[in-house]
Amino acid sequence: MNYRLVSNILGKVMLLEAALMIPSLIVSLIYKEESASAFLISIVILAVIGFVLSLIKAQKTKMFARDGFMIVSLSWIILALFGAFPFYISGEIPSFVDCIFETISGFTTTGSSILTDVEVLPKGLLFWRSFTHWFGGMGVLVFFLTLIPSMNGRTQHILRAESPGPSPGKLVPKIKDTSMILYSIYFILTLICIVCLLLAGMPLFDSIVHTFGTAGTGGFGIKNNSLAYYNSPLIYMIISIFMIVFGVNFTIYFYILKRNVFEIKKNSEVKLFIVIVTLATLLITVNIKGLYGSIWVAFYQSFFQVTSLVSTTGFATADYNQWPAFSKMILMCLMFAGSCAGSTAGGIKQIRLLIMLKVIRRNIKKLIHPRSVIPIRADGKLVEEEQVFGVTTFCFVYFLILIGATLLISLDNHDFETNFSAVLTAVSNVGPGFGKVGPTGNFAFYSDWSKLVLSFCMLVGRLEIFPVLMILHPSSWKRA
Amino acid sequence: MNYRLVSNILGKVMLLEAALMIPSLIVSLIYKEESASAFLISIVILAVIGFVLSLIKAQKTKMFARDGFMIVSLSWIILALFGAFPFYISGEIPSFVDCIFETISGFTTTGSSILTDVEVLPKGLLFWRSFTHWFGGMGVLVFFLTLIPSMNGRTQHILRAESPGPSPGKLVPKIKDTSMILYSIYFILTLICIVCLLLAGMPLFDSIVHTFGTAGTGGFGIKNNSLAYYNSPLIYMIISIFMIVFGVNFTIYFYILKRNVFEIKKNSEVKLFIVIVTLATLLITVNIKGLYGSIWVAFYQSFFQVTSLVSTTGFATADYNQWPAFSKMILMCLMFAGSCAGSTAGGIKQIRLLIMLKVIRRNIKKLIHPRSVIPIRADGKLVEEEQVFGVTTFCFVYFLILIGATLLISLDNHDFETNFSAVLTAVSNVGPGFGKVGPTGNFAFYSDWSKLVLSFCMLVGRLEIFPVLMILHPSSWKRA
Repeated sequence: MNYRLVSNILGKVMLLEAALMIPSLIVSLIYKEESASAFLISIVILAVIGFVLSLIKAQKTKMFARDGFMIVSLSWIILALFGAFPFYISGEIPSFVDCIFETISGFTTTGSSILTDVEVLPKGLLFWRSFTHWFGGMGVLVFFLTLIPSMNGRTQHILRAESPGPSPGKLVPKIKDTSMILYSIYFILTLICIVCLLLAGMPLFDSIVHTFGTAGTGGFGIKNNSLAYYNSPLIYMIISIFMIVFGVNFTIYFYILKRNVFEIKKNSEVKLFIVIVTLATLLITVNIKGLYGSIWVAFYQSFFQVTSLVSTTGFATADYNQWPAFSKMILMCLMFAGSCAGSTAGGIKQIRLLIMLKVIRRNIKKLIHPRSVIPIRADGKLVEEEQVFGVTTFCFVYFLILIGATLLISLDNHDFETNFSAVLTAVSNVGPGFGKVGPTGNFAFYSDWSKLVLSFCMLVGRLEIFPVLMILHPSSWKRA
Repeated sequence: MNYRLVSNILGKVMLLEAALMIPSLIVSLIYKEESASAFLISIVILAVIGFVLSLIKAQKTKMFARDGFMIVSLSWIILALFGAFPFYISGEIPSFVDCIFETISGFTTTGSSILTDVEVLPKGLLFWRSFTHWFGGMGVLVFFLTLIPSMNGRTQHILRAESPGPSPGKLVPKIKDTSMILYSIYFILTLICIVCLLLAGMPLFDSIVHTFGTAGTGGFGIKNNSLAYYNSPLIYMIISIFMIVFGVNFTIYFYILKRNVFEIKKNSEVKLFIVIVTLATLLITVNIKGLYGSIWVAFYQSFFQVTSLVSTTGFATADYNQWPAFSKMILMCLMFAGSCAGSTAGGIKQIRLLIMLKVIRRNIKKLIHPRSVIPIRADGKLVEEEQVFGVTTFCFVYFLILIGATLLISLDNHDFETNFSAVLTAVSNVGPGFGKVGPTGNFAFYSDWSKLVLSFCMLVGRLEIFPVLMILHPSSWKRA
């Protein structure tokens, strides 16, 4: 690892985080909350340490892949550690482990919470909590790339490590410009979502924070019963639709702007995504109809929960823990799958599932015709064998981490459904799970040990496993 | 598919099954049970249909891979269908779906049962039930290969489809001789196990059927509380040790006979297996010590349950459902893992886990040094990339079937722990699961639909997925 280069960039990341806290500080001041001082202290600490670190100049400025990955992993850990300061300094969340859990849950756009009563939190902290979703969703370092011109040309590893999905495509030749386009799309969609919620009758503050949660596919709410509080099918539908919008590969919006119908039509990942959402919604609607009496209520409750979990957002309008086992199991499958690569969502991603299904079909065909050579294609393009291999390995490690982390947190002696779904919701960055961590529950009852394991899972899920596993490998830390 | 060739061999398989029922018929006659007539009728039906089918002569006798795989899959389905006849004709199990479930569970060496009171079953049927374990464990068609000389030279696909593990090794140049050696080892170890149980004070009949369950790593018992009935730590220890013996790759015994110390020492799969068993036993012993008061009781209960589940046998001496969540989760991990390739056990197999761990390590190393080429080795030998790829795909499909089948049986509206572990225990061919299908429970409460899904899972697990998936693919059925 190039220590000097990494330190320099980490310093800049801390300066960025200080800047990110300013909007929350302003909110605190508007509402005249005591927590304003907590933001001020956090900003000062971040600015001072960040400034000192950024003074370290690298002698060798060439960035290798390993440096890129280490920068991303370490940045996220630092963001979580210092992002927890406002919660801790204000005294609103007394345990520092809880503060870290809440912040990682925010930045990774998970939305799992240790708060038993979220409504008592000051507005500034509620804003910060949801703002981490918005920023974490698109990628903190990807944003960074749009700011700093000197990083150009050696930054593809950062984009690779921080973007959800197997292969982040460049839309335009320069990474900097790609980031800029993606962030602009993100920003405009966010504004549209806020306006829609305002028009539907949601107060301004609520519209903004819920839009942050929707855009980042995070899911932190500001009411104890999440969105059920508003009891408005119109609001549910608006958020459902925007959860899908933000669960789709953002490049599709670029092609829509460019009126490139060809690229839109051949996008098999988005097609699969829409098929899965439709199928899941219909099956659950039929399954829960008896529970709600009306098919319309069953439909919008089903549609909301499906879009919320498949987009890995995690807002809730109903306690799906009370639904029949079949509906619950469909929802769990959606939590595995997640949405599209290149969106703000978590999970395995539709494109990986698509590739895996093709691999399975190929395996069966190869039994029938052993000497046949069958390449894997997606969107009409050949997928290289090494990439296919990477996808299968990813999926396996995904399950391995799921099982392994469930083992680790089962030391707390809670039931299997709770533990397994707690880990799944963490790794897939969803938010709620089943059992005690269902939509009406929270993660407060877990021990510090389990909270740290789950925090690690969220990070692993957000950065797609390998960059995080890398920091556990001693040779990554060798001076270079 | 070469219909004539396949029909001919399926006919011979039916003749073989008729022969396999004769020992059970004799047991029925010895105990003067009415069920003797059920065996007699079944044998006649099998013999007649089998004889007619075996009259069909193939014009093209060259066996392609697809024919080999289809023969194995279809044979197992036929074995299960007709093997269910004695249960059904005798009237002891009134539902035919239940009969099929019990027979598939037997042949696939799973040991899950739909019987709520096994002790009322006649001895002849108890013998047949356990005998299917013994025969299914080693492979019905593998046995076949030792009998029929005309099959030689085109049978590697059958061995490949029916042997547990990624790559069945030939011990000697001729497949027929390899099968013969393996079956001889199997037979001798079985005899030793019976003698040990007799010396430990178990009655003769009980010793024989429990040995069948142990050798095939099946797990059907003849008492309602499984082996806990005997309440003898000595018997527990004997069976524990033999479950390990039958969970180890049989080729190791061949090398022991040959005094080939080199091949034994370098066997990393067996080493991993022993490490896992030791570690799991110790962790659970410490975890359940408080429950049993004595460390010795905790140890032998832990050792028995660990060896029973890792070998995918499924005998029980304690209701591990009552153990702490951590111990239960360790046991569940063992159910995933299973034992060694080339044994009678199910599960993912240690060798696949070993390869996957090496793949993960390689992936991390490749992030650090992107251009490095790192081959995967096992036992000092290079594992071909195509094989490595096969292992990762296998593992993924394993999990996919697990999740998919859990979804299908959740239509019955039982809890997640029960459904998930029911499928896991079926796919890994273990026997008991957790929750309602725990060691004191059974599978009677599931609907016919779920029982058929679980039967399919057992078959998929026993034949290692792809040969069974193949029969679902239309082009396998094309005439050739």
